Amino acid sequence: MKATIYEGNKTFTVIEKEIEQPATGEVRIKVAYVGVCGTDVHIYHGMMDKRVNIPETIGHEMSGVIDAVGEGVSGYAVGDKVVVRPLDDRKVKPSDKGFNHICEELKFIGIDSPGAMQEYWNVPAFTLHKLKDNTDLKLAALIEPLSVATHDVRLSGLVPGETAVVLGGGPIGLLVAMVAKEAGANVIISEVNETRIAKAKELGLTAVNPMNVDLVEYVREQTEGRLADVVFEVAGVQPALDVMTEVAGIRGRIVMVAIHGQKKEVDLFKFFWKELKLIGARVYEKEDYEKSIALITANELPFEEMITDVQPLSNIQQVFENIDNNPDGMKVLMDCQL
Amino acid sequence: MKATIYEGNKTFTVIEKEIEQPATGEVRIKVAYVGVCGTDVHIYHGMMDKRVNIPETIGHEMSGVIDAVGEGVSGYAVGDKVVVRPLDDRKVKPSDKGFNHICEELKFIGIDSPGAMQEYWNVPAFTLHKLKDNTDLKLAALIEPLSVATHDVRLSGLVPGETAVVLGGGPIGLLVAMVAKEAGANVIISEVNETRIAKAKELGLTAVNPMNVDLVEYVREQTEGRLADVVFEVAGVQPALDVMTEVAGIRGRIVMVAIHGQKKEVDLFKFFWKELKLIGARVYEKEDYEKSIALITANELPFEEMITDVQPLSNIQQVFENIDNNPDGMKVLMDCQL
Repeated sequence: MKATIYEGNKTFTVIEKEIEQPATGEVRIKVAYVGVCGTDVHIYHGMMDKRVNIPETIGHEMSGVIDAVGEGVSGYAVGDKVVVRPLDDRKVKPSDKGFNHICEELKFIGIDSPGAMQEYWNVPAFTLHKLKDNTDLKLAALIEPLSVATHDVRLSGLVPGETAVVLGGGPIGLLVAMVAKEAGANVIISEVNETRIAKAKELGLTAVNPMNVDLVEYVREQTEGRLADVVFEVAGVQPALDVMTEVAGIRGRIVMVAIHGQKKEVDLFKFFWKELKLIGARVYEKEDYEKSIALITANELPFEEMITDVQPLSNIQQVFENIDNNPDGMKVLMDCQL
Repeated sequence: MKATIYEGNKTFTVIEKEIEQPATGEVRIKVAYVGVCGTDVHIYHGMMDKRVNIPETIGHEMSGVIDAVGEGVSGYAVGDKVVVRPLDDRKVKPSDKGFNHICEELKFIGIDSPGAMQEYWNVPAFTLHKLKDNTDLKLAALIEPLSVATHDVRLSGLVPGETAVVLGGGPIGLLVAMVAKEAGANVIISEVNETRIAKAKELGLTAVNPMNVDLVEYVREQTEGRLADVVFEVAGVQPALDVMTEVAGIRGRIVMVAIHGQKKEVDLFKFFWKELKLIGARVYEKEDYEKSIALITANELPFEEMITDVQPLSNIQQVFENIDNNPDGMKVLMDCQL
């Protein structure tokens, strides 16, 4: 079988190795497609070399078909189409209060242990979600990032008719916007990259450039002064943090999706004055995956448009180099069947 | 009648003036006691001279007895013991979404319009809450600040058995701690002033000094690693902001009670990583007043101990000067009947 290895130093290699039998409690998946996540790009940049066990196969956005079933696994059979929810919560403790998806000793499969950027992938059966036989496996590779969006929208408590402002129109921002719109919100995306704005419009979404438009005044006009009921901070930059507390209306909820590596300045007075809520959101829970699977199965949203490139797995080095050189791209998949 | 006037420049004067008839929709209250709020001290310091209509009578923490009833007022009679919820929400708009207590055009009575630091006070009847005839009017002057605490605890979503950490052991911090404890929480106060720590212990509360004790490790030990379910940030200083995201456990809720005039550094990564929530909380709603009135009426908490001084209203200048010189004091009342 073919496998890819992150070697450190911005380098992936492609190797040939033996296909392994799945261990007890595991299945072997013949991987169909694997998406490149922002986290994978961080790994490629060497930002997570302390955490990743180099040399390592990475990747966690995927779809595939069960190829072999290990001992003690029930409910799954060879030929089942599946996706993996890459959270290994086997070390959960009572102090995690049942929030297994963010438990203190959580291992993220594809970062902390081998990932999906290979032809065959052995994973614990408890990570699996079964897909319908007619599911498009290319779209199914979006289920993991889509579940970040369904989780974010669920935690926001969004109800139909509310106005949601999404700060940042990259892949996760657009998925959040699509899910929020599907949930009945009036969605406004704020994004500085004109190509991404065009992409958002192509997807039927409303997007404005805060360099050209006063975002707060725009949202005020659109909402008869209510401003945003929900804000999703997906941009991860100080101007987004500055505007999030301005664009949120009374009792507005701000979902913190972006990962801010350093402490940042926040207008806490506005939290007090308007009784705002800041809601931290990380990965997903089982129900978010189920929601995403239902959305992908129904295929009524423009998911296809999110996939801007599909490359054979063996091109992995070039795929990561291209992502670095192209800030306009959305989701890039690698085909592991070629 | 006697009235006090804030003249600016750290100066109060005491004047004699005519008793006025209550206008339509208003009642006249013979004020019994009026407490000095941190906001009153800010006004005294000149921090709010742009907002206060100098020369002005200030004050909003009070108790009293209805002395005259204006036209069009029903449900109230001369002799009723009352407190005022000093929120004038008559300019509420649809964009306030029904959150009248923090509506955009809210006027705070006693800051934006004349307050209670006088012998008689005319107020709109919609601001009144009636007290039982046997209510102690001295304790009743605590209902307004206590309602800040009942509001904070209600918005925190605290449930019995949870651990609450209160950062800051001043008057509001101690009231929050008392209310949280009464609601069934295990409460730990973090305070640097040893006199306040002693006061908290006198009230039957647990208090530690984070200068001497590693607060996070202390809370970890007390909770078998769960850390705080709820954190109340009442201190308003950077070290409290630094520790709030550390001491909160997975899905912990942090209530922002303190007023931070400038943007401050916040560890947003922790919000993401532990899915923390930040909940802004300002003033109170009707139900918070009702809860506070029930607590004061039952008189089972050590409210009496919160009152560290009672002075005649005519001593107002000295009262404010003393508060400035005594960081150890808790709630100071002025008796308006003398």
